Amino acid sequence: MKLLSCHPKSTLPLHKIPSNTLPPSFSSLPNNPHSLHFSSSTKSTNPNRLSIRCRRSEYFEPQQPKFNTNPTSEAPSSKIYVGYSIYKGKAALQVEPRAPEFAPLDTGAFKLSKEGLVFLQFAPAVATRQYDWSRKQVFSLSVAEIGTLISLGPKDSCEFFHDPFKGKSDEGKVRKLLKVEPLPDGSGHFFNLSVQNRLMNVDESIYIPVTKAEFTVLNSAFSYILPYLMGWHAYANSIKPEDSTRLNNNSNPRSGADLEWSR
Amino acid sequence: MKLLSCHPKSTLPLHKIPSNTLPPSFSSLPNNPHSLHFSSSTKSTNPNRLSIRCRRSEYFEPQQPKFNTNPTSEAPSSKIYVGYSIYKGKAALQVEPRAPEFAPLDTGAFKLSKEGLVFLQFAPAVATRQYDWSRKQVFSLSVAEIGTLISLGPKDSCEFFHDPFKGKSDEGKVRKLLKVEPLPDGSGHFFNLSVQNRLMNVDESIYIPVTKAEFTVLNSAFSYILPYLMGWHAYANSIKPEDSTRLNNNSNPRSGADLEWSR
Amino acid sequence: MKLLSCHPKSTLPLHKIPSNTLPPSFSSLPNNPHSLHFSSSTKSTNPNRLSIRCRRSEYFEPQQPKFNTNPTSEAPSSKIYVGYSIYKGKAALQVEPRAPEFAPLDTGAFKLSKEGLVFLQFAPAVATRQYDWSRKQVFSLSVAEIGTLISLGPKDSCEFFHDPFKGKSDEGKVRKLLKVEPLPDGSGHFFNLSVQNRLMNVDESIYIPVTKAEFTVLNSAFSYILPYLMGWHAYANSIKPEDSTRLNNNSNPRSGADLEWSR
Amino acid sequence: MKLLSCHPKSTLPLHKIPSNTLPPSFSSLPNNPHSLHFSSSTKSTNPNRLSIRCRRSEYFEPQQPKFNTNPTSEAPSSKIYVGYSIYKGKAALQVEPRAPEFAPLDTGAFKLSKEGLVFLQFAPAVATRQYDWSRKQVFSLSVAEIGTLISLGPKDSCEFFHDPFKGKSDEGKVRKLLKVEPLPDGSGHFFNLSVQNRLMNVDESIYIPVTKAEFTVLNSAFSYILPYLMGWHAYANSIKPEDSTRLNNNSNPRSGADLEWSR
Repeated sequence: MKLLSCHPKSTLPLHKIPSNTLPPSFSSLPNNPHSLHFSSSTKSTNPNRLSIRCRRSEYFEPQQPKFNTNPTSEAPSSKIYVGYSIYKGKAALQVEPRAPEFAPLDTGAFKLSKEGLVFLQFAPAVATRQYDWSRKQVFSLSVAEIGTLISLGPKDSCEFFHDPFKGKSDEGKVRKLLKVEPLPDGSGHFFNLSVQNRLMNVDESIYIPVTKAEFTVLNSAFSYILPYLMGWHAYANSIKPEDSTRLNNNSNPRSGADLEWSR
Repeated sequence: MKLLSCHPKSTLPLHKIPSNTLPPSFSSLPNNPHSLHFSSSTKSTNPNRLSIRCRRSEYFEPQQPKFNTNPTSEAPSSKIYVGYSIYKGKAALQVEPRAPEFAPLDTGAFKLSKEGLVFLQFAPAVATRQYDWSRKQVFSLSVAEIGTLISLGPKDSCEFFHDPFKGKSDEGKVRKLLKVEPLPDGSGHFFNLSVQNRLMNVDESIYIPVTKAEFTVLNSAFSYILPYLMGWHAYANSIKPEDSTRLNNNSNPRSGADLEWSR
Repeated sequence: MKLLSCHPKSTLPLHKIPSNTLPPSFSSLPNNPHSLHFSSSTKSTNPNRLSIRCRRSEYFEPQQPKFNTNPTSEAPSSKIYVGYSIYKGKAALQVEPRAPEFAPLDTGAFKLSKEGLVFLQFAPAVATRQYDWSRKQVFSLSVAEIGTLISLGPKDSCEFFHDPFKGKSDEGKVRKLLKVEPLPDGSGHFFNLSVQNRLMNVDESIYIPVTKAEFTVLNSAFSYILPYLMGWHAYANSIKPEDSTRLNNNSNPRSGADLEWSR
Repeated sequence: MKLLSCHPKSTLPLHKIPSNTLPPSFSSLPNNPHSLHFSSSTKSTNPNRLSIRCRRSEYFEPQQPKFNTNPTSEAPSSKIYVGYSIYKGKAALQVEPRAPEFAPLDTGAFKLSKEGLVFLQFAPAVATRQYDWSRKQVFSLSVAEIGTLISLGPKDSCEFFHDPFKGKSDEGKVRKLLKVEPLPDGSGHFFNLSVQNRLMNVDESIYIPVTKAEFTVLNSAFSYILPYLMGWHAYANSIKPEDSTRLNNNSNPRSGADLEWSR
């Protein structure tokens, strides 16, 4: 296990931040005096406990990520780094969208070649407000998994299993299991990522409670980004009144699809 | 019945892909190791069974579609191909938006002349991870039908009937019925498209189970695209602060609409 | 009462269409063979009856609107006409957004000066698939009224009262009441607009049933357009990473708002 | 306590309006004859009482705000002022988004450096349709607090506590508590902001009822703006098909994140 090293924000070499992690100062709110308390008049909850969970005054100084050592190859000038971070007593969770990919066709058109994802990055806490990002574990949510999460009711749970080497020689050597389960008091959900990595001799399980408010923010961001991860925004944005003179005339009048379209 | 022919992705002549089908490599996730498991703590479900349904590791090599043989006429350079695909043991379902159409007015303005649609394309499986796209059946969802789908509760069902030749000489010769019904265990919905085509002597019925997660993705995409299919995005995007000096002064002060507006 | 005159679409002088009505050919689907059937497994509904309600095969030839006789004054070149129309046996309902207005400030900034609206236009049927648009009644939904509609549960009802002359000398002479009530069988809502206009000696009440699917489409369009009617899209679109170097430094450090912002 | 001074709209020097308040004429609807009545068939409510609450015919002439005396420093030419205002008998509430901030990186990319907020500004009424904006109290909602509000059920309540000086020498001297609680008759929620400011010897508590319709509008605006406050719109808008040729090839094939991405 590696030791945590905490870099103060000002000394971080910002130009070396790779694209697959949040910039160190992202969402760091050192003077954040928020204390969030959520209660429902239909349930008896423990406000003190919730109040602690929702506190966002924990500092966060993520370590430089170790992989992806050639970040400039992935950083075009228009690159934007966004995400959402949740800091709790025992762990931190960082959420970050990853864009879909398109492939150009010979016609000059583009087709979606790969759906986007949302990265979840879990880091264990090693001290108050300090998280060991060198031990972070990563789980990528597919479009369907995001669909599962945003349709999750307050009492629902779900789990996703990933084997990054499935179909390869190392199949079964890395096993990742993400469980999302309701908190016993109904105040939110637990996220639990278990990773068994026999290649690196790692067996890590990271828990983090996510309040109803934070889950709403996550789902709001997920719902917003989902059509973008599917590339539908690119299609939608290409719908322009002035380009709308379609040539639907020279198609086979008996084809099912064209009949469906011309109805 | 036609035989399935599987083209490996690399040999597909991409420049001939017409606009009314998804490109062959769309959403093909050959190494996808996802195994999706969804459960609700309020219901007793069979996770193994669900796990199988949600598996997305089935390969997909759709055949070249046979209709619309002159694709270049419909492929302007800014064309974007997107969709969403669901692959199951017995069938595959591909979903694809189709843009609305606008007509120019003499004033230089545009009016919506035709609402957009969402195409559903069903193909039966002929072997593991192989679907016969030559036997695909197409069903186009109108704006109101999309409204029905996105308002469908977990226990609701709906059905849509289309006759592509309604009002024409061949009325009644092609009958398409799409049924969407809840799965018995509450884990999602069944989509069933029945097509009776007396012109081509086809009588096909294709079932595909759609999990709650996939239905959420579909509905998320449908909800996103609906205002675009209605053309409201074009109106919304035309609302610009700097163009906002309206000339509402010279209208009849007694007209109902103007009074309603000037309130 | 005026007589209905039906203009075939092709003879309509399109360049005279004013901005406060839908273009005549808007959403006219003369060959629409859709038959929409919606049922819920939790309720016993009458599918035949519903099927009739959802039929969209009624033709629609709205008459030229009589007011707003100088339409060109309101038609800048980028104008887009969109809406949504529901045609039933006894009446038609056309829905149309109306943009907010912004006022320029001396600084070059813009402020929202008037929220947008959604126009509802009701026309009674005079024959099968024929609606008398000369007798149409107009009701404009404010942002808060739209909020009421989109939060309406399946069993909820609401009503809005407008007096276009409120606070003027003719106050009380025109009274408009819009009621939205659940259909007895739970299949949707009734829209009922009653207008008492003593100035024009009109006393009209127009009912139109709106299915759950159509109400979903309406609410989907309303939810989409609401932030635009409030002008928030203009603010949101002005948020650009490259413009983000704010000057928050020279403000009073003791002011409450600034402290709230700098937390 | 300061006295209220009402400036007629036309005499307000518009070019001095600072960015952290709504322009004086914003949402002022002097001739607004709307009377909003909302009822649910599942509950017995008092329509008269509701009708009064929803009335929007109260005038509003906010005073010039006293802080932020150098407004031009915050008003770039593209600045847009939007918001949403609720005027009731005893108080007014103005809601206004505040954009996130981005920081440029050496690579030319941008990272979110500060999440956006929504400002709530409460002013007590001093006479019919007159509010004392010199006594206004400000509360800023963070992204997580907005998440709490938009997930609030009709019977749920929540409260947020802010100390603007937390971690500073004046910690504890200003205490702000915002409570949002359901109205007893289920017709909406009460917003109550209590501010104890020992530095300025202020102890103010302002209540304002917010109807279900208004709460829906607020939540609709909040849901819309949330991804913008998180900066995700900037990421989403940067996803363009033509920029999509990613260089994912030269990364370490054993890194967890890359494996997750290349699945």
